[in-house]
Amino acid sequence: MTYCCGILVREGLVMIADTRTNAGLDNVSTFRKLHVFKQPGERIMAIASSGNLSLSQSVVSTMIEGIENKDTGERETLMNAPTMFQAAQRIGRVVRQLHELEGSALEASEVKFDVSFLFGGQIKGERMRLFMVYSAGNFIECTTDTPYLQIGEHKYGKPVLDRAVTYGVDLYDALKIGLISMDSTMRSNLGVGMPIDILVARRDVCDAELSYRIEPGEPYFHDLRERWSAALRAAHNAIPRPPYAGAS
Amino acid sequence: MTYCCGILVREGLVMIADTRTNAGLDNVSTFRKLHVFKQPGERIMAIASSGNLSLSQSVVSTMIEGIENKDTGERETLMNAPTMFQAAQRIGRVVRQLHELEGSALEASEVKFDVSFLFGGQIKGERMRLFMVYSAGNFIECTTDTPYLQIGEHKYGKPVLDRAVTYGVDLYDALKIGLISMDSTMRSNLGVGMPIDILVARRDVCDAELSYRIEPGEPYFHDLRERWSAALRAAHNAIPRPPYAGAS
Repeated sequence: MTYCCGILVREGLVMIADTRTNAGLDNVSTFRKLHVFKQPGERIMAIASSGNLSLSQSVVSTMIEGIENKDTGERETLMNAPTMFQAAQRIGRVVRQLHELEGSALEASEVKFDVSFLFGGQIKGERMRLFMVYSAGNFIECTTDTPYLQIGEHKYGKPVLDRAVTYGVDLYDALKIGLISMDSTMRSNLGVGMPIDILVARRDVCDAELSYRIEPGEPYFHDLRERWSAALRAAHNAIPRPPYAGAS
Repeated sequence: MTYCCGILVREGLVMIADTRTNAGLDNVSTFRKLHVFKQPGERIMAIASSGNLSLSQSVVSTMIEGIENKDTGERETLMNAPTMFQAAQRIGRVVRQLHELEGSALEASEVKFDVSFLFGGQIKGERMRLFMVYSAGNFIECTTDTPYLQIGEHKYGKPVLDRAVTYGVDLYDALKIGLISMDSTMRSNLGVGMPIDILVARRDVCDAELSYRIEPGEPYFHDLRERWSAALRAAHNAIPRPPYAGAS
């Protein structure tokens, strides 16, 4: 399992990904799922992946090596994509090529072709964007109405995002809320686990302002988990008991 | 979709069910999913159901009409079950009979045989019990370690139960936490909706202490939703921003 979320607010982009992979409960490992590509001042891009690890790694490797465009002869990579939109299209194309190549073999082994991506960033001169690419290679873009996207185990961590994230929140508040969302998910799904990789990119800087791995026991995240738990306990304690009385 | 939860604490049993059913997003209705059976002072039983409505209604109707036991000739209903355990077994048997009868016809129409139940209550002289019956007719029982069970859309409402419900909480605090859990679920899944049916049964009374329907706009539940939202906002506002700084 996996949980990744991307939050795109006025001030910039936050991307958060866990690192747990598992093939069954008895085979658990740590793999990086958040990959950052940058040419400081020119472009910052990040991919977070969910689903079958062999598929997501293949897509990322292919996007680094590039795929040949038969019309132009150009080797198309993420780093030479002219726009964020075209970069997202390239990821979708690689996903589709991979499906053609491996889909039937996987199906024959009853492995579902399951892979999805968050892809966010900014190229100099363009606006900052965040996309979610599905396993069919199609994709959607994050907008200001709902300024976040999630992949993987999205349900446990969605309520806090829905309540707390708006386009106008401070960039590091967005990171904080994303970490609370990650905490809620980790508490309820053992398939999502530490360490946690985070990226913060401020709008129009075209570089990573923060690219960091939160390891188990890291003091701030530990404190955030404790405070959130205590606040939730206080929150339901403060609500009066139901006044209903009498059986019907 | 559906969300039902049952909470079994030291003082008694709480059962909560929404009433929304839908066949696609364009066909939404209200149906009671929480059914209470009682003989005050002797036995109190309640079934909450999730899954295909035709299946869950068939099971409940059959448990009222009874099924003939070929060995004894007796008509076995919920109300004449000697113990809660045997009552749960009867529900499981009816689910299996229904699967034999209708499973292949449903499958031919690509309808999944999907139905599950929470079944709780107490028979005089026995302890209070709470079960979850699966669509294969097997069932599990709630214990003091995790004093709740859920069916339907369980993920959104699970974190608050995990954090707040223990076997020792006050009976009406359990109801309150169950209602917060229902609120979280309704906010995130349109397939779960009001009105909400609730049952509270105090241990060893063998009757419903409260059997009530919360209608849309009901003041206490409205206030609970507002307070919970405000408390969550305050909770994440009170957590300091992440101290991480500097790109790596």
